[in-house]
Amino acid sequence: MSEQPIDTDLVARENAARQSALERDYEALGEQLDRRGIPIDAIRDKVAAFAVAIPSWGVGTGGTRFARFPGPGEPRDIFDKIEDCAVIHQLTRATPTISLHIPWDRAEPALLKEAAARRGLAFDAMNSNTFQDHPGQHHSYKFGSLSHTDAATRAQAVEHNLECIEIGRAIGSKALTVWIGDGSNFPGQSDFARAFERYLDSMKQIYAALPEDWRLFTEHKIYEPAFYSTVVQDWGTNYLIARELGEKAFCLVDLGHHAPNVNIEMIVSRLIQFGKLGGFHFNDSKYGDDDLDAGVIDPYRLFLIFNELVAAERRAVPGFAPAHMLDQSHNVTDPIESLMLSAVEVTRAYAQALLVDRTALDAFQEENDALMASETLKTAFRTDVGPVLAMARLRSGGAVDPVAAYRASGYRRKVADERPAARGTGGGIV
Amino acid sequence: MSEQPIDTDLVARENAARQSALERDYEALGEQLDRRGIPIDAIRDKVAAFAVAIPSWGVGTGGTRFARFPGPGEPRDIFDKIEDCAVIHQLTRATPTISLHIPWDRAEPALLKEAAARRGLAFDAMNSNTFQDHPGQHHSYKFGSLSHTDAATRAQAVEHNLECIEIGRAIGSKALTVWIGDGSNFPGQSDFARAFERYLDSMKQIYAALPEDWRLFTEHKIYEPAFYSTVVQDWGTNYLIARELGEKAFCLVDLGHHAPNVNIEMIVSRLIQFGKLGGFHFNDSKYGDDDLDAGVIDPYRLFLIFNELVAAERRAVPGFAPAHMLDQSHNVTDPIESLMLSAVEVTRAYAQALLVDRTALDAFQEENDALMASETLKTAFRTDVGPVLAMARLRSGGAVDPVAAYRASGYRRKVADERPAARGTGGGIV
Amino acid sequence: MSEQPIDTDLVARENAARQSALERDYEALGEQLDRRGIPIDAIRDKVAAFAVAIPSWGVGTGGTRFARFPGPGEPRDIFDKIEDCAVIHQLTRATPTISLHIPWDRAEPALLKEAAARRGLAFDAMNSNTFQDHPGQHHSYKFGSLSHTDAATRAQAVEHNLECIEIGRAIGSKALTVWIGDGSNFPGQSDFARAFERYLDSMKQIYAALPEDWRLFTEHKIYEPAFYSTVVQDWGTNYLIARELGEKAFCLVDLGHHAPNVNIEMIVSRLIQFGKLGGFHFNDSKYGDDDLDAGVIDPYRLFLIFNELVAAERRAVPGFAPAHMLDQSHNVTDPIESLMLSAVEVTRAYAQALLVDRTALDAFQEENDALMASETLKTAFRTDVGPVLAMARLRSGGAVDPVAAYRASGYRRKVADERPAARGTGGGIV
Amino acid sequence: MSEQPIDTDLVARENAARQSALERDYEALGEQLDRRGIPIDAIRDKVAAFAVAIPSWGVGTGGTRFARFPGPGEPRDIFDKIEDCAVIHQLTRATPTISLHIPWDRAEPALLKEAAARRGLAFDAMNSNTFQDHPGQHHSYKFGSLSHTDAATRAQAVEHNLECIEIGRAIGSKALTVWIGDGSNFPGQSDFARAFERYLDSMKQIYAALPEDWRLFTEHKIYEPAFYSTVVQDWGTNYLIARELGEKAFCLVDLGHHAPNVNIEMIVSRLIQFGKLGGFHFNDSKYGDDDLDAGVIDPYRLFLIFNELVAAERRAVPGFAPAHMLDQSHNVTDPIESLMLSAVEVTRAYAQALLVDRTALDAFQEENDALMASETLKTAFRTDVGPVLAMARLRSGGAVDPVAAYRASGYRRKVADERPAARGTGGGIV
Repeated sequence: MSEQPIDTDLVARENAARQSALERDYEALGEQLDRRGIPIDAIRDKVAAFAVAIPSWGVGTGGTRFARFPGPGEPRDIFDKIEDCAVIHQLTRATPTISLHIPWDRAEPALLKEAAARRGLAFDAMNSNTFQDHPGQHHSYKFGSLSHTDAATRAQAVEHNLECIEIGRAIGSKALTVWIGDGSNFPGQSDFARAFERYLDSMKQIYAALPEDWRLFTEHKIYEPAFYSTVVQDWGTNYLIARELGEKAFCLVDLGHHAPNVNIEMIVSRLIQFGKLGGFHFNDSKYGDDDLDAGVIDPYRLFLIFNELVAAERRAVPGFAPAHMLDQSHNVTDPIESLMLSAVEVTRAYAQALLVDRTALDAFQEENDALMASETLKTAFRTDVGPVLAMARLRSGGAVDPVAAYRASGYRRKVADERPAARGTGGGIV
Repeated sequence: MSEQPIDTDLVARENAARQSALERDYEALGEQLDRRGIPIDAIRDKVAAFAVAIPSWGVGTGGTRFARFPGPGEPRDIFDKIEDCAVIHQLTRATPTISLHIPWDRAEPALLKEAAARRGLAFDAMNSNTFQDHPGQHHSYKFGSLSHTDAATRAQAVEHNLECIEIGRAIGSKALTVWIGDGSNFPGQSDFARAFERYLDSMKQIYAALPEDWRLFTEHKIYEPAFYSTVVQDWGTNYLIARELGEKAFCLVDLGHHAPNVNIEMIVSRLIQFGKLGGFHFNDSKYGDDDLDAGVIDPYRLFLIFNELVAAERRAVPGFAPAHMLDQSHNVTDPIESLMLSAVEVTRAYAQALLVDRTALDAFQEENDALMASETLKTAFRTDVGPVLAMARLRSGGAVDPVAAYRASGYRRKVADERPAARGTGGGIV
Repeated sequence: MSEQPIDTDLVARENAARQSALERDYEALGEQLDRRGIPIDAIRDKVAAFAVAIPSWGVGTGGTRFARFPGPGEPRDIFDKIEDCAVIHQLTRATPTISLHIPWDRAEPALLKEAAARRGLAFDAMNSNTFQDHPGQHHSYKFGSLSHTDAATRAQAVEHNLECIEIGRAIGSKALTVWIGDGSNFPGQSDFARAFERYLDSMKQIYAALPEDWRLFTEHKIYEPAFYSTVVQDWGTNYLIARELGEKAFCLVDLGHHAPNVNIEMIVSRLIQFGKLGGFHFNDSKYGDDDLDAGVIDPYRLFLIFNELVAAERRAVPGFAPAHMLDQSHNVTDPIESLMLSAVEVTRAYAQALLVDRTALDAFQEENDALMASETLKTAFRTDVGPVLAMARLRSGGAVDPVAAYRASGYRRKVADERPAARGTGGGIV
Repeated sequence: MSEQPIDTDLVARENAARQSALERDYEALGEQLDRRGIPIDAIRDKVAAFAVAIPSWGVGTGGTRFARFPGPGEPRDIFDKIEDCAVIHQLTRATPTISLHIPWDRAEPALLKEAAARRGLAFDAMNSNTFQDHPGQHHSYKFGSLSHTDAATRAQAVEHNLECIEIGRAIGSKALTVWIGDGSNFPGQSDFARAFERYLDSMKQIYAALPEDWRLFTEHKIYEPAFYSTVVQDWGTNYLIARELGEKAFCLVDLGHHAPNVNIEMIVSRLIQFGKLGGFHFNDSKYGDDDLDAGVIDPYRLFLIFNELVAAERRAVPGFAPAHMLDQSHNVTDPIESLMLSAVEVTRAYAQALLVDRTALDAFQEENDALMASETLKTAFRTDVGPVLAMARLRSGGAVDPVAAYRASGYRRKVADERPAARGTGGGIV
């Protein structure tokens, strides 16, 4: 096993204190699942194999346009971020990869690989950034990037994405995620059709540079930072993009990027059916792109999405291999704690979805027994799979209770001493 | 015990087949709760004492403006409805009262009382109806009722509510629920201020006729049947009404009557804090006033509402006694089945809310430990309280699995034979 | 000119009383537009050539699931409806076609053609109905139609659509509009992917029967009558349908069928860009599918949609020929009045969009001068084009003030005498 | 007249070039209004007397949590801001006051007064800021301010508001506006009732310090920066606050702070009716608190709000004196241009509302003639009042076309030279 940031003896002691209760609960649940014809150990093993990527930016404290309130021990650079990610994976055993964001995480590739490998981590999808202006940049993205009316600005944005691919290639990534802020704040500001044509043209250049074994993920979002229209506003447009680009292009679904009331699990189903589901940015939301911790607002919705994923797995949909990533903004919690619990929560939804009696569900659907079909899902959702998740962690060397172990370890206090506060508070963007 | 519509031997047999598994699960859960410091039997007893009223109209198949697709054995009158309600209560033991709707349920009060008493049922809040025109009515409610510009129409609507009080008094009801469809479809159609003045004036007349020991519930709704404005559009207006009327006036909260994204549990908290929470019309919704079965879309939201109610109980808020009623439209299910499961679901949310470790929660709130505060609620919500609910039913003479027992009983087939299909399909209102 | 239901002398008198003021206003506006480089007569002529279809069901009073409040003189059959449509077209000169709904409007094709021709009217798209059960039908649509799990039910729904094509062929229609209510009310009730496969399979059968010179319009809707999921939920799915079916298949956009906040004009642009915009069901909405009169809630949104249409016209997008139809529910107004004003309102948006200085707009967009781009649209929108519309009507033999002429004619009182009230009020679908 | 930042000769030349066309349009409109019984000069004079305040922060470029893209010549301090505000008022004659934000605008009161007076400006409501942490502050607002669980933090926030009152008193302000970001991101994080009690307690201390002739404005907002709950979430809570505090306390309505689909003009009516409308933060929005320029998304909604205000004026509601302020975030435009056009747009809505034939409207409402009531509003809204607004500006010494005059003046280039770029781009708050 790789070097671990948290003392493994401490984790062992923490686990020991919880082990007997866990075994009792696991046994009781096992007996109940057995009555339902489900072997608990098989679920546990599937859970143990499940993984979700951590976005490098997630380990820093987030903020809003009104303010950012940093916490102690904020990571100062990508190496600090890798360290924090290692904590998350050590305790949850569910987050073996990190998703980098360029230019924020720019560093010598060899050093990046070495730092990650030392902690037993690897790199997930690369994320480009053309929604901000960066020092030394020639053209501003104030009025767009890949869809900008100015060809030189578009070229610069394309070039940046190519650089992201290069870095990714060097560190073992296999995918590029493109999210842009392009759009408009006023009716008339942008010609929808021309802007989309320019976007597609830029994306084709990026797609052309994609290595053979890579995937390209595009992400839609209904609004913010543009407040009247966005170029990639919904899954309909996102699907058109993926189809126009080619077979390595797929759609990424962020749970907070939809209009109010939209049925997200249905979008997931459509994208699977038409071969274009790329993966997810998991988080939760009540209003807009709130970027809250996965499952804290509507855990049943998260379950319903995994219900589609497990159903597709079971149908053995060709080429079905969605990428899982958290994408959250932690404004009022310790980011490490939020990311640990969110990884657990996503895994929980997966475990619950594995418990759905799909033979019964198929029959109820066929007979239009809506009530029992619903109950079949609810029965799976209501099952407290906590013991399964904890047992999977325990057997993989993680923590039975990740937050408790983390708090006991004093990691945050330690890094607070090591990492001097740097960035000031946000200012006056209202 | 009163006469029961379902053969009690059949129920006993159904229960016997499930009893041993139930006992195993109850025991295992009991042990787990014991570790959390919660005596499971106390929870079971609180659950057994919980009740939610059935709306008489709920046992008929609902519909939309596009169509209504009746099922077999639709109740022909209030006496059939009482029979169906008796089934629900027999199997769930959670629905001892029926809420009548006048004029739909108009009948000889003595006969109503007798029919209910025979089944061990009583009457909940009376519901008036001034959102439809009824045969023999002098003035149309096309343009409003209690807020109509025409004084005679308002007087007729007031008079109808007084009749509802009279009937209710005769059958032992203790509350009147007033929901109106008044509003407008066009900007300019209605003067907001004058319409509200007229509404308040009408309501004051109704309030004046309210018996001493009654409560008056008013219900807000953002839209439908009016599509630009409604007179009682939200809790703000509803609160103003209750305050203007007096101390017997309270606000009713229907979960589907709010704008998208609104935090309903917070409204519940505000109404409790200012002494004006009257009670609930429970259902679930994804888009508008969908009137779906409680908890089928967002069970965590239902839990969060009960979290407020249990917290208020614990704080012993003076005068806190919210009325619970289901208000759903069953378009694609057997209404009896939907109402049984919905009653169970509401009770489930109550049971989960009872499990919240409130001492810990208070401390986390005080310290702004948002993550652990959230986890404290989630821990309660994730607990599979099914065994507690089933045990409470079993001990009260209900069914361990109400739907299974109901299906086994053949009740629907029996009433389908007895009750000839009457009403046609809906027509052409598009 | 064909026979007219309203006395043409009366119309002439009404017009005479308004002519001099109209000419003054037209002249003043002409002078102003001249300064902006726009020849007013050219706009007037384009306006005169604009047409929007009337849905046959629109001339009856609509309703909600709560109630329907009929007005006097409700049309008793399709021939009464044709008569009412003739009034609308006589006074507005903007509605030369009627869109039939089968089976509601089933009649001898020869009689239909004769009745319409006598009034100078023709037939627009045919509308099938598989969202209701009709007398004599073998299989119920309670659980779906074209996507039903039962093959026989799907076959029946396909057959009904083929009949609609046959009737349409006989009366000179050139399009079929398919809107279904299929969907689900409970998570789990329906398998999204299978339901959509069945839907596509049914639609392919209908498409195969489409005459060479016809178009097939499919209509998406986010919810209602299904309240958890609908099979054709948004433009993304609608696009997939049109693409799967073939080059005669197009997407229909109803302004009230989207999630809250969705940018509809952008959807219009996307569909134009990818060759799949079929046309519109015009109406307005504040909350859901409110089916309010076009432009009464958000006239600027209507303008922005026409801004896309006029821009596409100007770009001479190949095959661009969107169908225009009103689709509204008139609950509190005289349907004839609402449809006249709505036709005027839609025409107004078209006229305003014609005034946009597109050369200036293009330049502002190119330079990212968001403020002036917005002002360019607003300048067109703010122009009071009423005199242009009225002049176009006057010169085509319509009424300067359609509602005033209609009220003066006494048409409603006349038909109220001729057409005895038939249908009762809606009942108890809550 | 006071010193003006823009050369008055230039303004005069710009106006001269437009005067003859303006006079023609004014005359033609005057004739048309005369036919409608409306004296155009009276409207012009009311328009000339109308004013809306400029928020000091509005003249800087805004941003989102993703990025801020500053423009040239950003104001460096409150004195630069006053200068920019002077330009807006000089050209529009509609914005004689500035609303300060503390601590951003902290400066020697005497200097503030002098700088404003020199430009003919005065000070509007003071705005406190407890949603950010400021240098030197003892307690962080990360977890709230006026409602914080910690008494010392609450005291600090109260103290800050008292300082705002002191500064305001010194510079001639007559109102304090309190908007807080307090709320929660997780269910359970905050106890709704206790948080509101603490908030009310803090506000009572602030209220107690309010000078006799001041007003206290509280502002509600459904979400952001808190994403699960906010303490002052809607007008219902805002009303409770104003009532609890006393007769100097009023509710402020920001057009972007409501749930989707909410009828804002109705809220305005309710607050007027119950004596608690304090005023407005004008802006426009399509999705959330988008802070777009007033009237660019839904100009009819803005008109409907002014329709309520003018109706209240006409009814001579006692104590009715709403405060008008713009509150926008200008991300992609020159803030001065946006604020000028927004002031014009707000004035336009007022002018249109003045044109409503209220006698006719009253009658249509009384008769439930929904169609003609709507048309009565639409007729006023459709009237192109541009010439009235321009004439009012011309006669008050402003610009016929404020943006054209501003651009011709070269003001932005001038200040770009004088004011070196200071703040960097926003960073990494995602």
